[in-house]
Amino acid sequence: MKKRIITIARQFGSGGHTIGQETARRLDVPFYDRNLISKIADESGYDQDFIQSLDDAETMAKSRLAQFLMGRDTKGKSISDYVYEAQKRVIRNIAEEGPCVIVGRCSDRILHDREDVLTVFIYADLDKREARILRRYGATDVPVEKRIEEKDGRRAAQYRYYTGVEWGAMENYDLCLNSGSLSTELCVDLLTSIVSGTVPTLGKGL
Amino acid sequence: MKKRIITIARQFGSGGHTIGQETARRLDVPFYDRNLISKIADESGYDQDFIQSLDDAETMAKSRLAQFLMGRDTKGKSISDYVYEAQKRVIRNIAEEGPCVIVGRCSDRILHDREDVLTVFIYADLDKREARILRRYGATDVPVEKRIEEKDGRRAAQYRYYTGVEWGAMENYDLCLNSGSLSTELCVDLLTSIVSGTVPTLGKGL
Repeated sequence: MKKRIITIARQFGSGGHTIGQETARRLDVPFYDRNLISKIADESGYDQDFIQSLDDAETMAKSRLAQFLMGRDTKGKSISDYVYEAQKRVIRNIAEEGPCVIVGRCSDRILHDREDVLTVFIYADLDKREARILRRYGATDVPVEKRIEEKDGRRAAQYRYYTGVEWGAMENYDLCLNSGSLSTELCVDLLTSIVSGTVPTLGKGL
Repeated sequence: MKKRIITIARQFGSGGHTIGQETARRLDVPFYDRNLISKIADESGYDQDFIQSLDDAETMAKSRLAQFLMGRDTKGKSISDYVYEAQKRVIRNIAEEGPCVIVGRCSDRILHDREDVLTVFIYADLDKREARILRRYGATDVPVEKRIEEKDGRRAAQYRYYTGVEWGAMENYDLCLNSGSLSTELCVDLLTSIVSGTVPTLGKGL
């Protein structure tokens, strides 16, 4: 089946967000990243700032906020469960609306049953990611390798908590691209070509 | 730098060998797989059948043959070390000769320092691999999932033994393609396009 929707999961500093944004621009389709938060707020009834704070929370296993969020109500559900359920509904509705590119937010897993979704993981060597982070966001008091470890650790923990599946495990994606060796430009070209059906077929076979 | 050489590592039953073969055919470049054995035999001085038997040996850690092979001579080297050194020289020479596609034989790692090499890993869901193996090679007394486990286990063990690096770990490749979800045809199209420089660029950006 033809792929119309791209989900992008990415290592921090791999340029995955930029790749997603540029791919959406070239395909002339909506791009969803943090801008999903206002939709999730509307859907869940929780405040945008509160939902944002979930993104910025420490690894689920560690933080006090997380422990509070994982407290269960009489239906056996935590606040974070309710937010995730709203996120699922929002992302499923968006997919129903038509072609788009979605970065993060467990979107690959949420849309896992749809055959029109191309699930992508973007990664790069550590030195390339460090250089990109320093170039784009600058240095902070925290060493850059520590920032990567924390951010990706949080992404992996949240993904595992919500989906029960390993973040960044090859078998969960249709393709995995090393943006450091291929270049972000080539990654955009590849994704754009796959979805627009313009990958050249130089011959017949198989 | 422009990529001229493709190395393909693949899960058993993923169609990676076929993808490599067809990509080489379309690019009109030499294709190397088991046919490397005769070159390695010439280079090492060992018999072809003997080198073939190394491929078919049990996981290095387990087999009696492996234990014999890992016995050291006065230079501290095992027979399998000598064969691997010959294999390295053969693969490096081939890469010097010009564009080509090489399947397996630690070729990605052996050519790791060359910027003109595109390193690819091909994988697929277990059910797709099982179906492909039964279609192509038929059923045997050994259950198909056991055949996959043994073959990929051997590949992983040999790769780890010779290179010290994890086989099939995403970060060791430029791109990883799920041939089950993308189709083997699209994998060929993508690899052919990357190496021939014909991936469409639909716009400017980044």
